[in-house]
Amino acid sequence: MKDIRSISTSTQFCAVIGNPIAHSLSPAIHNAAFVELDLDFVYVACRVEDVKNALAGMRALNNFRGMSITIPHKIEAMKHVDEIAEIDRTIGSINTVINEQGKLLGLGTDGPGALKAIIDAGVEIDDKNILMLGSGGAARAISFTLTRNAKLEKLSILDINEIMLQQLTTDLKAGTDTFIKSELLSERSLATAMENADVIIHCTPIGMQPNEDASLIPAEFFQSKQVIFDIVYTPLETKLLADARSRGLKVISGVDMFINQAVLQFERFTGVDAPIEVMRRVVMEHLASH
Amino acid sequence: MKDIRSISTSTQFCAVIGNPIAHSLSPAIHNAAFVELDLDFVYVACRVEDVKNALAGMRALNNFRGMSITIPHKIEAMKHVDEIAEIDRTIGSINTVINEQGKLLGLGTDGPGALKAIIDAGVEIDDKNILMLGSGGAARAISFTLTRNAKLEKLSILDINEIMLQQLTTDLKAGTDTFIKSELLSERSLATAMENADVIIHCTPIGMQPNEDASLIPAEFFQSKQVIFDIVYTPLETKLLADARSRGLKVISGVDMFINQAVLQFERFTGVDAPIEVMRRVVMEHLASH
Repeated sequence: MKDIRSISTSTQFCAVIGNPIAHSLSPAIHNAAFVELDLDFVYVACRVEDVKNALAGMRALNNFRGMSITIPHKIEAMKHVDEIAEIDRTIGSINTVINEQGKLLGLGTDGPGALKAIIDAGVEIDDKNILMLGSGGAARAISFTLTRNAKLEKLSILDINEIMLQQLTTDLKAGTDTFIKSELLSERSLATAMENADVIIHCTPIGMQPNEDASLIPAEFFQSKQVIFDIVYTPLETKLLADARSRGLKVISGVDMFINQAVLQFERFTGVDAPIEVMRRVVMEHLASH
Repeated sequence: MKDIRSISTSTQFCAVIGNPIAHSLSPAIHNAAFVELDLDFVYVACRVEDVKNALAGMRALNNFRGMSITIPHKIEAMKHVDEIAEIDRTIGSINTVINEQGKLLGLGTDGPGALKAIIDAGVEIDDKNILMLGSGGAARAISFTLTRNAKLEKLSILDINEIMLQQLTTDLKAGTDTFIKSELLSERSLATAMENADVIIHCTPIGMQPNEDASLIPAEFFQSKQVIFDIVYTPLETKLLADARSRGLKVISGVDMFINQAVLQFERFTGVDAPIEVMRRVVMEHLASH
């Protein structure tokens, strides 16, 4: 038990900002972790429209240590911090801000969270063919993180949005040495891509509640030994993952990426190893009850 | 017990800003009161140099409900809020900011806190001669609050700083109907003023730790039936109050004003009656242990 009466003038605080914010799990996750490790931190949530001034305020408030940024502010927030790592600038969004004594450092933990989920699942990606479905913000974060941290044989990307697909392809070709192949998503291009893919990473909203009966990949496209990673985590087991699991394929759930992005934020906020099982339990309890 | 794990996306937060801030009692006082009433609030502290951006941030962060402003920001903060009551503009400082859905309302609770201390002590000020020693920020807040809320017979003000004294006198004459008499502070002017005063309000730092052996008023100046109110509360009983008490005079301690200004802030933050005895206990425990 950690009573709010233990808060003193040295207590640091963090906040998640977004709009809307009512359904964010971040206060529950981070406060549980602070209590677990008896850290002198507290975490709140704010609906924010004016990202610039929210960040200006963070810079001015010395105990405002960390911020989680969620939809729709992940791109806008980049403009108002003081330093961003090159990879995050290339990805084009951030989900975390650290206040280093008045200097705001922006960074992303979605890509690293996905990479950690892959590694923790014991899945090898060096020398593998990776198929990424989707080219939006999450796809950008994951594709840059994977290509910068592993030696993929090939990264194929399919999307129905030609402009976003082309932009990501161009940026990846400029920013990595990985062989990139991109194509407009169609049943035919998907069928072909699935034939040679070792790891499939699904980065579109298809299958998310309330459309949980949908899956982008027809079950007959699966090949044995493929690994299916779905970044959607509501529901916890999407139709895509259920289909893959029923064919005996290895699956990675989006909830692992979600937990990991919070774990990596927590470690940047506090400088200590996160109590990951406590954080996982909070996430699972909340998702199971909704 | 109110665990920080109870914090959710609907939890509102407040903060005290100042520089330095390490010795502020505000987090302890307000969090104890939140817990007592089981309110969904939490209170932190921040050292701040850039008041403008601290307030801009408050405006942008929807759950940042209330702010206490302490030294040296009580004057500067006025420039960066959206609305200030006329009396607080005239006083020239604020110690409280309320965030009303993105509109910042600035106000002062020092004067009202002093008035409440006088009323709670059962001291009548209507038709009385009030002697105020000092003309700084606290004197301004108290003198305007008393003259606007009571029908004083006379308010006499003494100070060694002629410029501040003249400014306050001019402002009071323009802003109230009360008969104001001001004079440079000397042993002689003090002796004369003490002869006719009913209530003496000491608003200078004389007698404050570490100079607790000092008192501005020689004990032989006291008249029977006078009331002595010392706004200094470190030590809890100043030499001035001890001298007055030993002569059988009624005294009002600065700690009552200090508690009341927090009580009035709390009520503006939360909209509910403050648990004043809990707040008093926190203040007394902290002051007794230092």
